[in-house]
Amino acid sequence: MSPEARPTIADVARKAGVSKGLVSFALNDKPGVSAQARTRILDAAAELGWTPNLRARSLSTGRSFACGLVIGRSTDVIAADPFFPSLIAGLEDVFSVSGQVLVLSAATPGRHEVETYRGLAADRRVDGLILTDLRAADERIALVGELGLHAVTLGRPDVDSPFSSVSVDDGAGIRCAVEHLAALGHDRIAHVAGPDAMLHARRRTAAFEDAARANGMSSRVVRTDFSAAQGATATRDLLALADAPTAIVYSNDQMAVAGIGVAERLGLRVPGDLSVSGFDDTELGRHLRPALTSVATDARAWGAAAARALLGMLAGDAVAHIELAEPTLVIRESTSVSPHPPTGGLGRH
Amino acid sequence: MSPEARPTIADVARKAGVSKGLVSFALNDKPGVSAQARTRILDAAAELGWTPNLRARSLSTGRSFACGLVIGRSTDVIAADPFFPSLIAGLEDVFSVSGQVLVLSAATPGRHEVETYRGLAADRRVDGLILTDLRAADERIALVGELGLHAVTLGRPDVDSPFSSVSVDDGAGIRCAVEHLAALGHDRIAHVAGPDAMLHARRRTAAFEDAARANGMSSRVVRTDFSAAQGATATRDLLALADAPTAIVYSNDQMAVAGIGVAERLGLRVPGDLSVSGFDDTELGRHLRPALTSVATDARAWGAAAARALLGMLAGDAVAHIELAEPTLVIRESTSVSPHPPTGGLGRH
Repeated sequence: MSPEARPTIADVARKAGVSKGLVSFALNDKPGVSAQARTRILDAAAELGWTPNLRARSLSTGRSFACGLVIGRSTDVIAADPFFPSLIAGLEDVFSVSGQVLVLSAATPGRHEVETYRGLAADRRVDGLILTDLRAADERIALVGELGLHAVTLGRPDVDSPFSSVSVDDGAGIRCAVEHLAALGHDRIAHVAGPDAMLHARRRTAAFEDAARANGMSSRVVRTDFSAAQGATATRDLLALADAPTAIVYSNDQMAVAGIGVAERLGLRVPGDLSVSGFDDTELGRHLRPALTSVATDARAWGAAAARALLGMLAGDAVAHIELAEPTLVIRESTSVSPHPPTGGLGRH
Repeated sequence: MSPEARPTIADVARKAGVSKGLVSFALNDKPGVSAQARTRILDAAAELGWTPNLRARSLSTGRSFACGLVIGRSTDVIAADPFFPSLIAGLEDVFSVSGQVLVLSAATPGRHEVETYRGLAADRRVDGLILTDLRAADERIALVGELGLHAVTLGRPDVDSPFSSVSVDDGAGIRCAVEHLAALGHDRIAHVAGPDAMLHARRRTAAFEDAARANGMSSRVVRTDFSAAQGATATRDLLALADAPTAIVYSNDQMAVAGIGVAERLGLRVPGDLSVSGFDDTELGRHLRPALTSVATDARAWGAAAARALLGMLAGDAVAHIELAEPTLVIRESTSVSPHPPTGGLGRH
């Protein structure tokens, strides 16, 4: 590759229609660049394939130009849950342009997790962190602060936090699903939830119970580790009940798909006998038959917004709490009218 | 966390039943430790939650204690394909214990990819690289060598390479699928393949065509980008043919799932009218109805083996070419006898 093939800051400035100085400020994460201008400049840099000369920058700034993501779930769940690759894709959409690299570590909650964070700080591997799967009274908030690192949390912690956050109102998505089922005449519904230790699972469960109560429906909640296997088991347990639900709201798509498999093996039709909704609106759900009704969140946009917020903090921006657009319910084929009248009193079929 | 909570090399030695010196050699990636002893020591270290003091090591060795993975597919595909999270989980199974971190970059093939590799080398971000999705005459082999980095390739390149490799015989898996279909009486089959630029897609396609020929079957191949959407389109095109196949061998599970959805929407029963096999044996396929017949590879074990091979190269081990166990075919519900006799002459049904 010849040196002239590498686009310069002047090329980026021309494309974005701004001064070279402003490009330099934006690309070096300095304050004083509006969010709009920064976005336009990063977009222009991305289109041109501009990449920074980090070595020169690092010598002058003492920064590592790396951001860390410590995944505190077992590597099994990382392998099975499409949320993480989508999130990582979104982080990379931004970091690949700004010249940050993403340092990824898997850690189990507890001691090994603490050691992982300490190691990233002590070894100066990263300038900042993305904190996911917040837990109740999450001890990582204080830890990361003590370690002198910047961070952005996905969602608002339930403890004081010095960090910016980027949130999606998961509860709104669950409420949409419950209201959709209420309108279809369901009055006995269940929620197959994620692990109770995770704040977002608690918030979804609370939203589910509130919405069911508000719509006069009876409801149950089963907790899982988010895996398809536990989604299948939860479905089997629910459908074995004397007053089995006529609709199940799952907390991710793969558990919903596994649930449909269980129901069909029991001789139930989906959606005729059982309505099913998923969460995250993954690509696969659109191609299934029945195509999956699902709460559409955008994990990739969430990742990109978190990466931008972290770059903002590193540039000295004030702490910000960003709310992304509310999730919507994409209604497809896996939900339909209740198999028994909403007035109740009749047995199933 | 109090300092005494951090396990020491002496603790690891006691648990593994070896000397402290051997533990130190193994954990510092020095030569002279047998593969068995290294595995036992790494397992003991993992169980105890031992983590290295990298800062001290880095000062004395000049190494970064980081390994890089540059994913040369679009971030869309990263988000949709379960292969990468499984591979990453396997890399982390090993790196999280050895104290390496994983530096992840997304890059599009072409100029941006070259810049990404140059950046990782110039900034001393990584000691070595995992090279995936090898292409024909892959220019990255020479590039990474010039940059002075170690690497391990997933699969053997078709050009001279100074690097260790860890391979799985994908072709053997495809042959199993074709022979299974031949035994079921199918004589018109198709393969929905990955991108032809990738060596593994070419090898799977060649194995498919060879096995079909050897079994006297007529065959077709459709190329895709591995996405569920292109898997659906390919299926629609194949089933619209006058001599539509009675069985389709897909190159990953999500395309197979999308293909089943397309077939069922056209009024075909799977497997009664159309047999379908997937590739990678992802968790979801086991829970579908019909449960998916799929070639079982172990992306996670592949990642772990590649990580170990890279640590071996960094420790000065000789270049090695490791063949993992041949993939097997897991036969479930999505394949069955051909809907028309193998002697031909009869129309469909």
